[in-house]
Amino acid sequence: MRTSYHEELNSVLDRLVHMAQLAETAVSEASVALLTADLGRAEAVITDDAELDRIHEEMEYKCLSILALQAPVAGELRTIVSAIRVVFELARMGDLAAHIAKIARLRYPAHAVPAQFEASFKEMAEIAIEIIDVARVSLQDRDAHGAHRLVDIDARMDTLRREQFESILADGADVTIEGAVDVALLGRYFERFADHAVAVGRRVIYIITGEVPEGEDWPNA
Amino acid sequence: MRTSYHEELNSVLDRLVHMAQLAETAVSEASVALLTADLGRAEAVITDDAELDRIHEEMEYKCLSILALQAPVAGELRTIVSAIRVVFELARMGDLAAHIAKIARLRYPAHAVPAQFEASFKEMAEIAIEIIDVARVSLQDRDAHGAHRLVDIDARMDTLRREQFESILADGADVTIEGAVDVALLGRYFERFADHAVAVGRRVIYIITGEVPEGEDWPNA
Repeated sequence: MRTSYHEELNSVLDRLVHMAQLAETAVSEASVALLTADLGRAEAVITDDAELDRIHEEMEYKCLSILALQAPVAGELRTIVSAIRVVFELARMGDLAAHIAKIARLRYPAHAVPAQFEASFKEMAEIAIEIIDVARVSLQDRDAHGAHRLVDIDARMDTLRREQFESILADGADVTIEGAVDVALLGRYFERFADHAVAVGRRVIYIITGEVPEGEDWPNA
Repeated sequence: MRTSYHEELNSVLDRLVHMAQLAETAVSEASVALLTADLGRAEAVITDDAELDRIHEEMEYKCLSILALQAPVAGELRTIVSAIRVVFELARMGDLAAHIAKIARLRYPAHAVPAQFEASFKEMAEIAIEIIDVARVSLQDRDAHGAHRLVDIDARMDTLRREQFESILADGADVTIEGAVDVALLGRYFERFADHAVAVGRRVIYIITGEVPEGEDWPNA
């Protein structure tokens, strides 16, 4: 039954790719909702997050069943156990997109993002879409090289967040308390979104090579 | 070799209890550092977090080895796979305590918490210590009843966080931009700390009963 077993493993990885697509749509739509104060779009992101959570549950159960029924070893064991973790990371990315949409909804009809931070959040949104896209492709192609790029993309997100903090806290910054709090939390959600994509990449590298990426801080992924 | 296998499982659970103790110390010390602007204590929390991360890595490897070598089934499989998740949750709790300590360090010698929020964060700290303590005991005693209590403790944390937001954003709130941003982020870290404790509790319930807690939103744990 090894053939059907490999098919099962491949179908797990395909589902992860599907989850990554959903997470990408979620953060893309949440960003548009945020930057255009689009209530309907914000609500759709929040509602659709349930689908990612459902797949999370389904896939965790599926991976456990494979572990129980097939007792995989070596690379196959590594794939399944890493898949459980990737499923979790992708579901969290959906949650973070929903958090972004919830702030958009909370401030509607006003814009949550203060005008002078619009360009910065537009760039964060682009980085978020890029990073989940690279993570998805590396998962799809079982490509460790792509996964290694995620760290560099993430560094750009971290830089943007630092700049946002400097702007908010600068003397005479033209921002309200509410605006500053929204910027701080939205920045955190985008930053965490990217962190989870890096964690996905690490698991992809681990699936492919069996090695934890060198010089990287695995547990904090 | 079933006896030595059970001993191995028990030693995994004992290590989780130890991790929970480290996470409790971390959040307790981080809270004191935060509320008393104690730089040395803040730095100790940040440094000590590496130990939790190290155990995270060690335990994940250990659990994978058990999966590979023993091919556990049913309840034992459930225990090992849940342990991998609990290890992750506890390591994240350590990271969040370190985040709290980093804000204390950043504002030193000033106090990060604005005076009028001291009582609120003191209560958050107490809830954080209580919730990890209950999670640890439920893990130690394999006690699903204790784990069910975590949701109620978490609800108190969520209420506090809502109240903090209302205070920051109230008209004429006597708070600086920096103070408001610190309150928003610190509140988020304490809230997430409690969320992870609830997730630990859910895994304990799952280990004991084999059932996902009813009416609860597993994937968002």
